[in-house]
Amino acid sequence: MNIAIAQSGGPTCAINASLAGVFEAARNSGAVDKIFGSLNGIEGIFDEKLVNLTERINDDVKYQLLLRTPSAVLGSCRRKLPDYKVDSSYYDKITQVLRWNGIEVFFYIGGNDSMDTVAKYSEYLRENEIDDVRIIGIPKTIDNDLCGTDHSPGFGSAAKYVCSTVQEIARDSNVYSIPSVTVIETMGRHAGWLAASSCCLRANGESAPHLIYLPETTFSIEGFLADVKNQMTKHKGVIVVVSEGVKTAEGKFAAEQFQSGQVDTFGHVYLAGIGKFLEKLVAAEIGCKVRSIELNVMQRCSSHIASKEDIDSAEAIGAAAFEAALKGKSGCMMSFVRKSNKPYSYSITTVDAAEAANSEKFFPLEWINEEGNDVLPAAYDYFLPLIQGEVMPIMKNGMPLHLVIE
Amino acid sequence: MNIAIAQSGGPTCAINASLAGVFEAARNSGAVDKIFGSLNGIEGIFDEKLVNLTERINDDVKYQLLLRTPSAVLGSCRRKLPDYKVDSSYYDKITQVLRWNGIEVFFYIGGNDSMDTVAKYSEYLRENEIDDVRIIGIPKTIDNDLCGTDHSPGFGSAAKYVCSTVQEIARDSNVYSIPSVTVIETMGRHAGWLAASSCCLRANGESAPHLIYLPETTFSIEGFLADVKNQMTKHKGVIVVVSEGVKTAEGKFAAEQFQSGQVDTFGHVYLAGIGKFLEKLVAAEIGCKVRSIELNVMQRCSSHIASKEDIDSAEAIGAAAFEAALKGKSGCMMSFVRKSNKPYSYSITTVDAAEAANSEKFFPLEWINEEGNDVLPAAYDYFLPLIQGEVMPIMKNGMPLHLVIE
Repeated sequence: MNIAIAQSGGPTCAINASLAGVFEAARNSGAVDKIFGSLNGIEGIFDEKLVNLTERINDDVKYQLLLRTPSAVLGSCRRKLPDYKVDSSYYDKITQVLRWNGIEVFFYIGGNDSMDTVAKYSEYLRENEIDDVRIIGIPKTIDNDLCGTDHSPGFGSAAKYVCSTVQEIARDSNVYSIPSVTVIETMGRHAGWLAASSCCLRANGESAPHLIYLPETTFSIEGFLADVKNQMTKHKGVIVVVSEGVKTAEGKFAAEQFQSGQVDTFGHVYLAGIGKFLEKLVAAEIGCKVRSIELNVMQRCSSHIASKEDIDSAEAIGAAAFEAALKGKSGCMMSFVRKSNKPYSYSITTVDAAEAANSEKFFPLEWINEEGNDVLPAAYDYFLPLIQGEVMPIMKNGMPLHLVIE
Repeated sequence: MNIAIAQSGGPTCAINASLAGVFEAARNSGAVDKIFGSLNGIEGIFDEKLVNLTERINDDVKYQLLLRTPSAVLGSCRRKLPDYKVDSSYYDKITQVLRWNGIEVFFYIGGNDSMDTVAKYSEYLRENEIDDVRIIGIPKTIDNDLCGTDHSPGFGSAAKYVCSTVQEIARDSNVYSIPSVTVIETMGRHAGWLAASSCCLRANGESAPHLIYLPETTFSIEGFLADVKNQMTKHKGVIVVVSEGVKTAEGKFAAEQFQSGQVDTFGHVYLAGIGKFLEKLVAAEIGCKVRSIELNVMQRCSSHIASKEDIDSAEAIGAAAFEAALKGKSGCMMSFVRKSNKPYSYSITTVDAAEAANSEKFFPLEWINEEGNDVLPAAYDYFLPLIQGEVMPIMKNGMPLHLVIE
């Protein structure tokens, strides 16, 4: 049989490791003839843009580079499939291309939308009694908001980047003798996992971050200013970590509600991120030295400080997906089940892809303090195992090397 | 004799390595009784806030952590000394404190302003015929704009961070099939060294960055838009690196001139950085997918990806400063003299601190292309040796450990 693998949604540091895991398990199985990579997600199936991965990953150095390359070597897409009961033409074409190429199993690595694709396509296959084609989902997201799994590949590396960087920023912000406030904005429009992960610093004896704000609680200007003033009585350099998606009591994004009416030089609606807004707020209302820092896409692409646990388990869940395929599975998403925090151990199982599709796993309210400006120790136990270990980059000319598949 | 060391100006990844170099050379010399650290630059001398470094750095692990800790473990200051001919009281107090503590040599690690302090204080000593106290400057700046030295400690690590991060962002920006523009803003208000260093990526076969803008040339909206449109015909994901300090034909900061009159939600003058401004410009005028990324303080504090060449040579120039002190030097700044690019070699010498003070070393115009939107191969030869090698962080709980001196 032949198989195909595609990647979808936002880039991460671990999505290529999951691709590597499927690829390596398939190659070693002796059960697979051709391993196709589909370019730009499921669009590569539709448009028949397939590459022969066995030719592209043909030595161990390339395999090792694949594990260390951020983003998605096969490219990505953001496509939500239509309802096949209304229009099945997209589904018919996908099935046709898979059959033409003798592809029996299609592995789709992605987040919510990709699992929606897995769920819809497997339902289509079932309804049409097609059993020579199957689809299996493999989770991926730095936001860690996928339901049906303890955590998602890509999150651990993003969290390790956030922790290491917040720690370095804490050093940097403390060099002057005057009081200062530093606001660090993380990704996470709906779920606060990444911002919350910065609590790990305290395991190393750091007092920072002094305030952590998540979308799961209510954010107010008054509460924020009072919190900052309070922390300034205890710390010379106050470090605040805030999720991009913190919300007001009205349930709106704080950055949008607080800046309504603001336009940019071009007369367009202008929205600074919440970090920049809070910087301006502190400057106006407290008047101390203040800086905002947006961690931006570095959170999802800083492979040079990837978590070994994340990369290893991303590879393992890819391999497990291939094993599940050999057992005849379809329409499922691979899932991590945590067995223990200390020592950390997990198993890999499958859940119905529909369980993960179109829903979001929020940061648990019971792990947030009463004031809504910090997280509780239970969170450390959850996060710490996910950021352990380093994957040394392969360097050339002083810079990390990546694998590029054109 | 006793000695004192202080750190000044903006934080870097290498300023603690220079401190380590002076400390270790002094300790091994057998010629020094007490090695003092002065807290918050020269203010620690004035206020007599001195710590005994031999007690604080009392084992090899702490020494190794010192080499790997960003910012400035002794704290910093931004103080420009008054003219001693107008008011010598500050100078008199400094001299008094140094004498009280038996400090014969004061080592000052910093940038332009610190070298101004070295120059002024040594002139004061000379004019007043004081020869029992001396001062020696050690260069430091991520901006690489210090005159009198081939390069400055701290720059190589900042450049390595910029190169590695721009490369990872280039991967990240290329995952979708639609055209996009990514604008990356680096530090450098007057000199473009950091932005220019991103050219090193091409040594690894990367086409990015596709455009590089420096403060040394003239920046215009029309030229920028034409350049971007031109690059979009060649590359799906166009990567632009821009110095925060690019200037208009009128010699004003582009970010300021282009946004004059813009106010924020608080009614204050609002200036987005040049990167964010260019993002809005591309969105308004070209209308494609566009993102801006400010590398912010991560450029100066990301010790986890420090350049080994930078850290080693920062330590070496610290040790050389101590050797210069033993030879009776004063009023000088330590300086790197490059002997060869391939293989890279340098020597360390001294220059008059006044030569480095109050002047800036700009990126050479002859290394910039005719269009003013890229740099020439001579720049690669200059930059590449400075970003070589890695200093592995010492990790605990999955995060880098730092040394903190309270």
